[in-house]
Amino acid sequence: MSSERKFIENIWYAAGWEWEVAEADNKLARTICEVPLVFYKTEGGDYVALDNRCCHRSAPLSLGRIEGDCLRCMYHGMLFNPEGKVVQIPGQDHIASSMKVRSYPVECRGGMIWIWMGDPEQANPDLIHDFAPLSQPDQWRGFDKESYLHYDANWLLIVDNLSDFSHVAFVHTTTLGGSEEYAYDTKIENLEQLDNGYRVERWHRNSPPPPFHSKVIPENEQEQMLDRCNRMGMYLPGVFLMDTIFEPVDGEGKKDDSRPVREYRNCQFMTPETYNTTHFFWNYLHCDQLENDDISLSLKDSLMEGFMEDKVFIEAQQKLLQDSPDFVPRSFSADEALTYFRLRWNAKLKEENAANPVQPARENKKRIL
Amino acid sequence: MSSERKFIENIWYAAGWEWEVAEADNKLARTICEVPLVFYKTEGGDYVALDNRCCHRSAPLSLGRIEGDCLRCMYHGMLFNPEGKVVQIPGQDHIASSMKVRSYPVECRGGMIWIWMGDPEQANPDLIHDFAPLSQPDQWRGFDKESYLHYDANWLLIVDNLSDFSHVAFVHTTTLGGSEEYAYDTKIENLEQLDNGYRVERWHRNSPPPPFHSKVIPENEQEQMLDRCNRMGMYLPGVFLMDTIFEPVDGEGKKDDSRPVREYRNCQFMTPETYNTTHFFWNYLHCDQLENDDISLSLKDSLMEGFMEDKVFIEAQQKLLQDSPDFVPRSFSADEALTYFRLRWNAKLKEENAANPVQPARENKKRIL
Amino acid sequence: MSSERKFIENIWYAAGWEWEVAEADNKLARTICEVPLVFYKTEGGDYVALDNRCCHRSAPLSLGRIEGDCLRCMYHGMLFNPEGKVVQIPGQDHIASSMKVRSYPVECRGGMIWIWMGDPEQANPDLIHDFAPLSQPDQWRGFDKESYLHYDANWLLIVDNLSDFSHVAFVHTTTLGGSEEYAYDTKIENLEQLDNGYRVERWHRNSPPPPFHSKVIPENEQEQMLDRCNRMGMYLPGVFLMDTIFEPVDGEGKKDDSRPVREYRNCQFMTPETYNTTHFFWNYLHCDQLENDDISLSLKDSLMEGFMEDKVFIEAQQKLLQDSPDFVPRSFSADEALTYFRLRWNAKLKEENAANPVQPARENKKRIL
Repeated sequence: MSSERKFIENIWYAAGWEWEVAEADNKLARTICEVPLVFYKTEGGDYVALDNRCCHRSAPLSLGRIEGDCLRCMYHGMLFNPEGKVVQIPGQDHIASSMKVRSYPVECRGGMIWIWMGDPEQANPDLIHDFAPLSQPDQWRGFDKESYLHYDANWLLIVDNLSDFSHVAFVHTTTLGGSEEYAYDTKIENLEQLDNGYRVERWHRNSPPPPFHSKVIPENEQEQMLDRCNRMGMYLPGVFLMDTIFEPVDGEGKKDDSRPVREYRNCQFMTPETYNTTHFFWNYLHCDQLENDDISLSLKDSLMEGFMEDKVFIEAQQKLLQDSPDFVPRSFSADEALTYFRLRWNAKLKEENAANPVQPARENKKRIL
Repeated sequence: MSSERKFIENIWYAAGWEWEVAEADNKLARTICEVPLVFYKTEGGDYVALDNRCCHRSAPLSLGRIEGDCLRCMYHGMLFNPEGKVVQIPGQDHIASSMKVRSYPVECRGGMIWIWMGDPEQANPDLIHDFAPLSQPDQWRGFDKESYLHYDANWLLIVDNLSDFSHVAFVHTTTLGGSEEYAYDTKIENLEQLDNGYRVERWHRNSPPPPFHSKVIPENEQEQMLDRCNRMGMYLPGVFLMDTIFEPVDGEGKKDDSRPVREYRNCQFMTPETYNTTHFFWNYLHCDQLENDDISLSLKDSLMEGFMEDKVFIEAQQKLLQDSPDFVPRSFSADEALTYFRLRWNAKLKEENAANPVQPARENKKRIL
Repeated sequence: MSSERKFIENIWYAAGWEWEVAEADNKLARTICEVPLVFYKTEGGDYVALDNRCCHRSAPLSLGRIEGDCLRCMYHGMLFNPEGKVVQIPGQDHIASSMKVRSYPVECRGGMIWIWMGDPEQANPDLIHDFAPLSQPDQWRGFDKESYLHYDANWLLIVDNLSDFSHVAFVHTTTLGGSEEYAYDTKIENLEQLDNGYRVERWHRNSPPPPFHSKVIPENEQEQMLDRCNRMGMYLPGVFLMDTIFEPVDGEGKKDDSRPVREYRNCQFMTPETYNTTHFFWNYLHCDQLENDDISLSLKDSLMEGFMEDKVFIEAQQKLLQDSPDFVPRSFSADEALTYFRLRWNAKLKEENAANPVQPARENKKRIL
């Protein structure tokens, strides 16, 4: 066993969309940071996260039954309250105080359930990355489901991917990119280094609309030139928020006020399931013709097609890196943002390990396997 | 390599039903206690167990051909006798005395082949758990096949399961249990601690017939109350034998002699394939209307449904325990029997390791992989 | 990490048939000796082998695009020349000299691409085992495709198999062998020990044609006796070349000049993918009735059937050997050739390890996983 933790704990992780819990019969088994958890929705409508292993014999609580605010293990019937304490043992009156599992702080924002994996005392909800468009259905329309993907890859490889949009030129030429020129012509701009991540812009000036956008705008705009701007923020542990703005230009790069500016909002949350697998949550929101289902559908298809293109590369990277731990990457100038993000992750992780060293496991005389 | 063995060796393990060997063309490849074995039936009708690897180049003897009492490796043609000695090498006259594989004592009882994994000198057939109903077809009817299951779980997790029937209330409510009250109302009784296991009773008094029983009794008995008694023995390494008795009561708990007492016999044999996988053999026998196929079929279906309910929990436990070796179980009072059984297993294993320490493997200069 | 290499490097390995590269869109991802490689065919028609991981972030170059002599990584667009140097980085002018991957010497002979895994300075094409019949379509007809198999086994287990044809009697009785007598009646003859392998003969005198041969000869020859001779060479790292000659005899073992001598040529190349998996390339060529498709088809079917019979044994051996690293093989006299071959492999491997010790990996502060 390593003597250092692999994941920052005192931070909010995106844990699951509310629709996922609903689809899982209100009891979702999900591993986060290598901790098996059960998320359940109480009959009162609150979300609870507990270790997904009964303290008795390690049966999964996700096979259990919701009773009011509580969850009953359906192996031998122990009843757990939202704090993780056993409050009933069938056939036995006394309940030892050691009869409990760990309960984790959870909060909901815009349909996403966030979990705090560290010290509950420090779980400040103000630190959650509450992406406003997710809670503004009258201004922004995303989609309800299918907004989850599972990756066989370390989450930082996805962060890397999003931290350098030059890949859009090659990986997404015919979907999100539009042309290979994007890699030659655009650069990271205005990189703002934060304690918990970075903010950056990328402008593609005087360029035709990329395929995903072209598919949802009126025909008469499809040939006209645009200044395309992506304003992105990437925050620990793996939260990507992006505003995309298409400003019409007149072909010589001057703003063309006769046509509308169009905007999108995009969030992508990368949460480690294990060190080598990732929960990937996303949504893509538009603000035009909110009642038009075709626009929403077209954007979802375009984005999903793009994500699948990324997935091939990222999971292949993962496999090659696992096979060759000695690989030394060679950086180029576009790696500035991703390099900075990894520095911040490592610094914060080191800080936590120093402040609160992992205790070596005590000899376990009771182990049952 | 661990310097201690993981399994008791000087003990009889249930290895396979005779029907399994017959279905495997009389040569069954089966790993027991992490030792790959071949069981074959000689033309004379005896069973033989040998290491399932030719001493020449490690080809599996289970791909071989039975010739009289012998088994021929079909890679280069070496012929093994039931003692594991090579008695013919095609194209070569001299046979070195080192040309042999290990042969294991085997015995048959009631359709089950038992194997002794330790010192052959100590293999006393009187120690086999010969469950009489399996050999009394005129009194007890079980079923011929489909009495084998494979578990992705350590065998002691199945022993645990059978050692506390309170799970019947929650896992098997609609199949073997009947109601959740079973967990609240019944307890382990008369626990008898043996050197090689335990015996115990569990009474469910004045209760309606559980679903599996209700399906095979006359309609006019289905509403009537019963005292249900399970008398169980659990013996090392993993042998479970149970008598189930349903005594009619008059609704106020007094014996009702106007209706028949009904009985069942059940055996379940848990044999480690590896430390994390198990061979599970079972049969369920009844004594009423022996000629009625429907009863046998109904009982098999009910029991199989129940075993599948267990399997979900037990294999989930296994997975969680493998992922978290540091899990410390918390006991409750119903764990008394399973805790005692594990103590006996550990004591006997320790005894064998002390009496006959595992020799460190010598440097192997001849290894071919 | 082991401090010794597992594979001889200064040697030519069979890497892939040209048809395989063509079928893979001219970019074949293939691991050899545990090194992930990409083989591509330039627009000029040359073959190039590079490490299949971009030096930037370890994306596979096999997902790239061939541009003239070069291969472009399609993740961020870096362009690699056949020497493995990055010659273009989109959006960046300066290219550091460390921006490169390893390029390996490759050569083609008779449709097979050979690769040199060690010091390029020592890559002498004269050392390639150029099997002449593969390049003589006017004299010898083999087949174009389906001449690749993947083995879940160490390549030396296949070398072992081919080094003792007594197995033909038992494994291939009804396909390539003809009778079990072959194991009793024939022996290795004229074993010639070479620095890089061995040559050997095996005669089966005065015997009926084996099934694979019987199927392709005229009906009136099928009952007539033959002297069957296999002249085989086995060369490091795993190259098997065989001439098979069927000489008619008169029933009393005297040469019968009234009937034709018939011949075949066979090559089998065993290349480690990993230590436990193997690329297996083969061809089987005949010289009679070259225009007759049925003969070619019949031989391919017969050989493939035989290889599948071998595969069952060899992959089962592999599994048993992996489970039991302490297995000590017992040799018999027919193991002379395979034992010698393994001695030569081990000697040459030891020599390379002594001449050029593996450097311990430096602490990798830049690792991205």
